[in-house]
Amino acid sequence: MLNKHSTHCPIAFGLNIFGDRWTLLILRDILFQDKKYYNEFLHSEEEISTNILADRLEQLEAQRILKKSPDPLNRKRFTYAPTTKGLDLIPVILAIVRWSGKHDPETAAPRPFLRKLEKPANAIERDIRRKFSLRT
Amino acid sequence: MLNKHSTHCPIAFGLNIFGDRWTLLILRDILFQDKKYYNEFLHSEEEISTNILADRLEQLEAQRILKKSPDPLNRKRFTYAPTTKGLDLIPVILAIVRWSGKHDPETAAPRPFLRKLEKPANAIERDIRRKFSLRT
Repeated sequence: MLNKHSTHCPIAFGLNIFGDRWTLLILRDILFQDKKYYNEFLHSEEEISTNILADRLEQLEAQRILKKSPDPLNRKRFTYAPTTKGLDLIPVILAIVRWSGKHDPETAAPRPFLRKLEKPANAIERDIRRKFSLRT
Repeated sequence: MLNKHSTHCPIAFGLNIFGDRWTLLILRDILFQDKKYYNEFLHSEEEISTNILADRLEQLEAQRILKKSPDPLNRKRFTYAPTTKGLDLIPVILAIVRWSGKHDPETAAPRPFLRKLEKPANAIERDIRRKFSLRT
């Protein structure tokens, strides 16, 4: 993920950290499905492999997107919880949900949930859309 | 990208299509930097390799996120432009810009641009944040 091609372009910067599907799927499990244990992530339906999961959790912890703590119920286990930096990824994930809700005819996203995500385009989005509508 | 782990979870669905850094970087070039030619994408500062670029453009066209057309100025060249489905990815990219603008101390995103992106959290985001603030 972090590599020599890293730049401070704000799009490239973010994608360097979470621009592989597994990273955001782990965050999905934590934010939307209340998972917090390694084994819970391992058993998600996308079937992440143990080595990729261990690597991504380590990177998310190193980036301070997740915080790893001993489980109060069993000190030999660990729990993963989002930091502020991790919670700040919620809008990225919701934007993806909105896009898939619109473009996947078989989406599993419930309609009432998608309606809650509807929002007017901001000025920057409107400007970009206008540019392309003029061109075609 | 599209593989056997594909599900209709709206997060996994989107990430299966654009969940690698190169795909959204190509869209960045088109949407924000007015690039439209293969050679322009090739010369972006992140230095995409020709084989990855060719593969991603083909996939973006197959997914109907980009439209490939002969260049009116030179019929031997092709231009790439976003479809409606591609334009609908603008909010995903802007959400990434917002996150990086906040968390990269050396971000190249100009402050006035970031201010234009500020927006109140919607109800779903507030609910998730509340859940984690109660827990800690």
